Amino acid sequence: MKDFKEYKEIFEHYMVENFPKVSPRELYEPYKYLMELDAKRIRPVMMLAANECYTKQTNEVLITALAVELFHNFSLMHDDIMDKSDTRRGKPTVHKKFNENSAILSGDVMLILSYELLAKLKDTPYFHDIFHLYNQTAIQICTGQQLDMNFEKEYIVTEMEYLLMIEYKTAVLLATSIQIGAILGGASNEEQKLMYSFGKNIGLAFQIQDDLLDSFGDSINTGKKVGGDILNNKKTLLLIKALQSPNRYHKELLNNWLQTFENSDHKIEDFKRIYEESGAMSYTIKKRDYFYNLALEDLAKTSISKENKEKLINFAKKSVDRIK
Amino acid sequence: MKDFKEYKEIFEHYMVENFPKVSPRELYEPYKYLMELDAKRIRPVMMLAANECYTKQTNEVLITALAVELFHNFSLMHDDIMDKSDTRRGKPTVHKKFNENSAILSGDVMLILSYELLAKLKDTPYFHDIFHLYNQTAIQICTGQQLDMNFEKEYIVTEMEYLLMIEYKTAVLLATSIQIGAILGGASNEEQKLMYSFGKNIGLAFQIQDDLLDSFGDSINTGKKVGGDILNNKKTLLLIKALQSPNRYHKELLNNWLQTFENSDHKIEDFKRIYEESGAMSYTIKKRDYFYNLALEDLAKTSISKENKEKLINFAKKSVDRIK
Repeated sequence: MKDFKEYKEIFEHYMVENFPKVSPRELYEPYKYLMELDAKRIRPVMMLAANECYTKQTNEVLITALAVELFHNFSLMHDDIMDKSDTRRGKPTVHKKFNENSAILSGDVMLILSYELLAKLKDTPYFHDIFHLYNQTAIQICTGQQLDMNFEKEYIVTEMEYLLMIEYKTAVLLATSIQIGAILGGASNEEQKLMYSFGKNIGLAFQIQDDLLDSFGDSINTGKKVGGDILNNKKTLLLIKALQSPNRYHKELLNNWLQTFENSDHKIEDFKRIYEESGAMSYTIKKRDYFYNLALEDLAKTSISKENKEKLINFAKKSVDRIK
Repeated sequence: MKDFKEYKEIFEHYMVENFPKVSPRELYEPYKYLMELDAKRIRPVMMLAANECYTKQTNEVLITALAVELFHNFSLMHDDIMDKSDTRRGKPTVHKKFNENSAILSGDVMLILSYELLAKLKDTPYFHDIFHLYNQTAIQICTGQQLDMNFEKEYIVTEMEYLLMIEYKTAVLLATSIQIGAILGGASNEEQKLMYSFGKNIGLAFQIQDDLLDSFGDSINTGKKVGGDILNNKKTLLLIKALQSPNRYHKELLNNWLQTFENSDHKIEDFKRIYEESGAMSYTIKKRDYFYNLALEDLAKTSISKENKEKLINFAKKSVDRIK
């Protein structure tokens, strides 16, 4: 198995080779702009790596890797409009750099082109399984985004609801990427399920880590403004747990802040302090590690070689540690 | 062959039966709202009718009819945001009735669900041809929308550019609907091409008629505000031809108005008068009839029965006549 950087380079070479060379310019520029931003390419890399863990190595995995990365970027492009995000990977989001119409339409065409890529596999025996998995995942991702938006308006969100939302919004695409790699590698159904579950649990750990970094990370390393979730009253696991604190003072302070949409550094300081004092932070770290360990258990059950397992764990670590 | 109304009823019954019965509500309500608005269902009806012109009648045509109608409504939902349209079929557009985020995300899920429907045909011999045609058309439709938006900013748009734009934005989906009906009916490649061309030419006539009605129609019958294109400086064939008028007074008056975005009834009156006096209106009517006649020639060359040809012509007339 190659290392993370090699897979990333192979993928990015293929991605750039396959940029659409057609007009109109306005439709494809936002696509190229977003796809060319510095990114880890976790999904394509994990797909390529998973594929190499099994017996059948195939070039088709680059096609599906690009399809999944296109889907991921389509969803980022539309989510950034919906979430009114101004920056992505430290650069202006598409609707800020270009305009909202470009971000809508270019996103649409990326989604369609991802299906066009899948169609290239039509004569392989894997096509139907991959197409079905892909569609199911695509619908779950839209559902996750809708739940996330719904939670902004809801006062009470449970831990289970939150976990389902991040499973759909974030984890299933990584799971699907890894499963597609396994399918193309000729893995059995049982193996595919384990690899999907491995990816899902890594994805959950990954999102919880992202929430932790949003409050406790360093904006230089993450490329994002620290405290964005706090200012937006995002119902993260940190907030959900902090609201369950038995300390009356914590609850009152949180509730007072939640009723304002004031962009104040005091709000960020208060929340972070309560997250630490109430145990919400340590609970969230434990939850991240819980899913990370579940992922390791899934991987242990697979038939792949010890060496490959270690490599995948290494890649998973790189994913969960979301520092650039 | 059944009549227009019967096909419409069969399709709408199937459509309602197949409304998603899943949550979250916020994701599927805009879908149902838009799909349930009073509409002619030209694309599904023409697909069902084209299918019956050939030997193999199949229930699968209802699946593809719903896929195409879903695609059409997804594109309306997103186009209405981009074009800042407040009404559609006499009712508030989705982003006005709900909100913009709902219109983006619900549109996305409709596009994905249309692919999910196509996947149901995966075990038929037609699947690959239909999937390829569908993708190509989907990309053309996005291209058409981009060209339409580009034209708003361009002062000079040629007749050829305009015709390419409406071919992509409007005509290809009707063409594709009819070709899919023919594919599922077992038509030969030659027949499929004729039916596609028939649909494309009907689609072009249909869009030119729509432009005529926007300026010269009756808002009660069309469900749209008369003069919308004029107020938005839309580069319709009417305006393109009027700007070529040798009459200096026409040109100056048009140019003066084009530099304003004033919402004035005087502007509408001036444009309509110039459209008539300059011959732009009669030229546009001739162009509409030219494409309509091309469509009839395509149909004449097909092998389908005289009775069915007459029915299809009748349906085409209903399509070109866009009064509700």
